[in-house]
Amino acid sequence: MARRNAFYAQSGGVTAVINASAAGVIEAARKEPGIGKVFAGQNGILGALREELIDTSQETKATIAALRQTPSGAFGSCRYKLKSLDENAREYERLIDVFRAHDIGYFFYNGGGDSQDTANKVSELGATLGYPIKCIGVPKTVDNDLPLTDTCPGFGSVAKYVAVSTREAALDVASMCETSTKVFIMEVMGRHAGWIAGAAGLAQENRGDPPHVILFPEVDFDDKKFLDKVRTTVEKRGYCVVVVSEGAKYADGRFLADAGTTDAFGHAQLGGVAPTLAEMVKRELGFKYHWAVADYLQRAARHIASKTDVDQAYAVGAHAVRLAASGKTGLMATIVRKSDSPYRWTVGEAPLGKVANVERKMPRSFITKDGFGITAPARRYLAPLIAGEDYPRFRQGLPQYASLKKVLVKKQLPAFEP
Amino acid sequence: MARRNAFYAQSGGVTAVINASAAGVIEAARKEPGIGKVFAGQNGILGALREELIDTSQETKATIAALRQTPSGAFGSCRYKLKSLDENAREYERLIDVFRAHDIGYFFYNGGGDSQDTANKVSELGATLGYPIKCIGVPKTVDNDLPLTDTCPGFGSVAKYVAVSTREAALDVASMCETSTKVFIMEVMGRHAGWIAGAAGLAQENRGDPPHVILFPEVDFDDKKFLDKVRTTVEKRGYCVVVVSEGAKYADGRFLADAGTTDAFGHAQLGGVAPTLAEMVKRELGFKYHWAVADYLQRAARHIASKTDVDQAYAVGAHAVRLAASGKTGLMATIVRKSDSPYRWTVGEAPLGKVANVERKMPRSFITKDGFGITAPARRYLAPLIAGEDYPRFRQGLPQYASLKKVLVKKQLPAFEP
Repeated sequence: MARRNAFYAQSGGVTAVINASAAGVIEAARKEPGIGKVFAGQNGILGALREELIDTSQETKATIAALRQTPSGAFGSCRYKLKSLDENAREYERLIDVFRAHDIGYFFYNGGGDSQDTANKVSELGATLGYPIKCIGVPKTVDNDLPLTDTCPGFGSVAKYVAVSTREAALDVASMCETSTKVFIMEVMGRHAGWIAGAAGLAQENRGDPPHVILFPEVDFDDKKFLDKVRTTVEKRGYCVVVVSEGAKYADGRFLADAGTTDAFGHAQLGGVAPTLAEMVKRELGFKYHWAVADYLQRAARHIASKTDVDQAYAVGAHAVRLAASGKTGLMATIVRKSDSPYRWTVGEAPLGKVANVERKMPRSFITKDGFGITAPARRYLAPLIAGEDYPRFRQGLPQYASLKKVLVKKQLPAFEP
Repeated sequence: MARRNAFYAQSGGVTAVINASAAGVIEAARKEPGIGKVFAGQNGILGALREELIDTSQETKATIAALRQTPSGAFGSCRYKLKSLDENAREYERLIDVFRAHDIGYFFYNGGGDSQDTANKVSELGATLGYPIKCIGVPKTVDNDLPLTDTCPGFGSVAKYVAVSTREAALDVASMCETSTKVFIMEVMGRHAGWIAGAAGLAQENRGDPPHVILFPEVDFDDKKFLDKVRTTVEKRGYCVVVVSEGAKYADGRFLADAGTTDAFGHAQLGGVAPTLAEMVKRELGFKYHWAVADYLQRAARHIASKTDVDQAYAVGAHAVRLAASGKTGLMATIVRKSDSPYRWTVGEAPLGKVANVERKMPRSFITKDGFGITAPARRYLAPLIAGEDYPRFRQGLPQYASLKKVLVKKQLPAFEP
């Protein structure tokens, strides 16, 4: 079998463990006799379009191993969605041109739903054009919204960060509520699906423990019900901890964060959900509040990554390579759950065509009847995903993260502006 | 020497390590032949005024040891400042009454400047009233603003959280800036002193590394200078990471957070500094931004506590007990630095009268000329304080924190409403 090179790219919002998938891809590829070099796209798929290919063979074994404990997208990622083949055949053809110029026979695309869709189209186009290429998707998204995989690498670590932070901040609030803050509101990611917010529920050990209120995008927000719940919780427990998904919205579809506020100059105020709710609590109930918006901190928090998540991120990367090397294409590597307790899992595969553009939300059965908490089945599903710690190496008090040489491959083609 | 009981209280904003000080006090007291039981104030000094005393002798050795790894104030803390003796003799006298009723001969007050002031007054009043009591302060404040101690327990852990989070989030932004967020703004605590914001500077390894801009309360904010710095940084580096102290303010004293904004109903908008700056960046420079407000997460983050800080918090608690047991009063236990590199420290003492009401800010020599970074002397001072990790025990993916029985001592006195 002729030895051919591979192309790997990171796509969309980065995570604490997407580089662990990169390590899985590169280390597995180095062991495959049929795979030559792995070129990584500089800034994701843009790197392929611009023919900016990072030659990972120039990176030492130690550096690639260190990727496993490095957050963010080490090769650069991008938010760039290729349009449909009809609308933008030019870009797909450019991809094939670049692949041909660098003898790339394997394409590993590490991203969410859109990326799986792109990988699928490239696979089909290769067949149409008679250019042989094996395209395998590597799942990644903190939102945990891809179908056909038990979970999405990246999610478990955000989930752990959110559960740990909720437990810690709740202790803080509880210890001071007698004379200080009564309501604490933490905003977490999840524009369309409430998986991340739901993970905060893992902080709860016994009934009545914080978080007392979780607000999901899947449940229409109702001012009165929310305020009633906050008031009765403060009356009963002395304080109330709220975790809200950035995607929380009213029944008419308006996001809570879309408060229509303006600043002193009349400019629209781009508020977070947490401050919006805090203001509502203050106005309607008069309670002293604090709020936090973790934003990127949550998805970059490699220092508190879930070991399960790191292992799975690595495993789907390595499995994608094995699938491609065995001649398969048009698949996404997946995580398959074999049992909840003890938690056992393995890697599997799903057709890219069935993954693309399907969004998996929290099932209603995972959310309590009142809409403010998670159920026992949700706990069974979520708990194993945050299990285990996998601390990075520290030096002088700070985590030591991989730093790449990023040597670019010599360009063969004319410039191309995407 | 007659065996007498001790009273311990936690005061003001809690930290990731104030319970380590509690463990230091209780474990050291259990070894002192002159000290009977340690009673802890339920919700701080309010517990003494209301005669709500938690009998720590009812807690097991394992529970007290677990306090060392538990964030927040395990006995409850409060924001309650006793007025001057003249204005409120009633409350000071009540304290002495409660101490007398429970044969309390030792008072350990774990807090910031105000608490040290209270401890000092109680010490003086005891002498005036002929009630023998040894009063020793145990320093605590994330703001690091107490004088006469090299650092304040609680600060090192927030500093580590902020430095680690800055490094992680900056990697995230760097990897996506080509097509996404260009400016990331993280708001941290520190109403009057910029120590916490300054600690973010430790994330920087080489010149030009993030954070690119730190905004200190000690440096007057200047819109133009700030926007110029952000613009040139984005031009040069592709992105810009800003860390801002909640206390950042204009030359005229107005806090940046005090933006005078109103919501759709005309209510004043209580904004954070981070969203205010983000809005300014968007409006004036047009860059895509993200912002985070860590709020309580930063001071509760025991999972990423500094080992140095945990050790020092414990040490000042234990030292306070030894000082009192040796007959001293009117002192605060302190941290004394013996050398920067290798870092060596020991415990010491300072007169409470000299600690009270003195606020230690960042010296100008610790801030770079342009006002946006920290200098080499600042690094030498700060670096050792975040050194070492001291992970709590985890079970099923979550840290296991101490849970107290909190058995209250039988009341002897009539009720008292503070």
